Amino acid sequence: MNKLGKDIEDKLKNSLPPKRYKHVAGVCAEAVKLANHYGADETRAYNAALLHDCAKGCGEEEQFRLCSEYGVELDEITKKCPPIIHAPLGAEIARRVYGVNDDEVLEAIRFHTVGKANMTLLEKIIYIADMIEPSRDFDGVDELRRAAYEDIDEAMLMCIAQGLIYNVKKCAVIHPKTLEAWNYLQINKKTEE
Amino acid sequence: MNKLGKDIEDKLKNSLPPKRYKHVAGVCAEAVKLANHYGADETRAYNAALLHDCAKGCGEEEQFRLCSEYGVELDEITKKCPPIIHAPLGAEIARRVYGVNDDEVLEAIRFHTVGKANMTLLEKIIYIADMIEPSRDFDGVDELRRAAYEDIDEAMLMCIAQGLIYNVKKCAVIHPKTLEAWNYLQINKKTEE
Repeated sequence: MNKLGKDIEDKLKNSLPPKRYKHVAGVCAEAVKLANHYGADETRAYNAALLHDCAKGCGEEEQFRLCSEYGVELDEITKKCPPIIHAPLGAEIARRVYGVNDDEVLEAIRFHTVGKANMTLLEKIIYIADMIEPSRDFDGVDELRRAAYEDIDEAMLMCIAQGLIYNVKKCAVIHPKTLEAWNYLQINKKTEE
Repeated sequence: MNKLGKDIEDKLKNSLPPKRYKHVAGVCAEAVKLANHYGADETRAYNAALLHDCAKGCGEEEQFRLCSEYGVELDEITKKCPPIIHAPLGAEIARRVYGVNDDEVLEAIRFHTVGKANMTLLEKIIYIADMIEPSRDFDGVDELRRAAYEDIDEAMLMCIAQGLIYNVKKCAVIHPKTLEAWNYLQINKKTEE
């Protein structure tokens, strides 16, 4: 697919608060850098990054309404955890509203929050870029940034570990797909490392 | 069912190292105490506690062999995590070798390590008793002991939280049923608390 143009950028910009758009621009830059580093498709990385949070312009109630309108099925855990709804909904908005029909890009948007087992390189790039883009600032982010360019699977594990521990301490539900991502990566760790 | 007799105790004792048997005796005492506290069946609690680790007398290779002989199906995660095999195998040994045919008791043995969503009171009692019996000594065990007699679901969450964080830090796989137990208890928390 072609790189999404200025019209899409403007449309998205109008739908998001400035702080969120700054984050999106950071994810775009980071995703392109990671794509170049790992030999992934730079255009797909840019497009998926640009639209990964496109559902964040909607409030919680509107997100539930749109899921219902668009037939985005939400499992029980996602329903209990509204902050993750924007990912599957975002994939559908990217398709319907922004005209993206590249499944690889749509899947990278769909799974950028919970992850899943056996993620594609593009999916990992969007997941990681979202965590480490330049405006992110949290304990351990520099370690993650280093790992992201050394071993993307190790960086995935570090991100997931952080998320799991954060959610356990917060007594929050955890999406089973996140655990599937964790177990898959642990089981398939390169043994030479 | 009747309380398992001295013959079963002796048979079990002969199959386990003395330290393991001491733990089992501790779990029996704790499970009976918890059963009385929560109005559960004391005999079932005793029987499940007595046999919860009955497969621990076998080494790893023998455990895999017996699973195959007895038709105990192991999912992919359990296969990658030998320390949890003794629970489903133990339920089958309890049935075949020790003659237990009470499904509630067998299920409490089967799920005493990974847990599951919507556990019965007996299942929770065995899970918790296993963690807090008198010979257990780890950071936070006294807090767990207090919680166990105040709110068994809260104690379950504390045990599971500890296990999840421990396994994440150890980079170990985590059984999906453990996460199901966690999510179920979080979603069904008593709201008045």
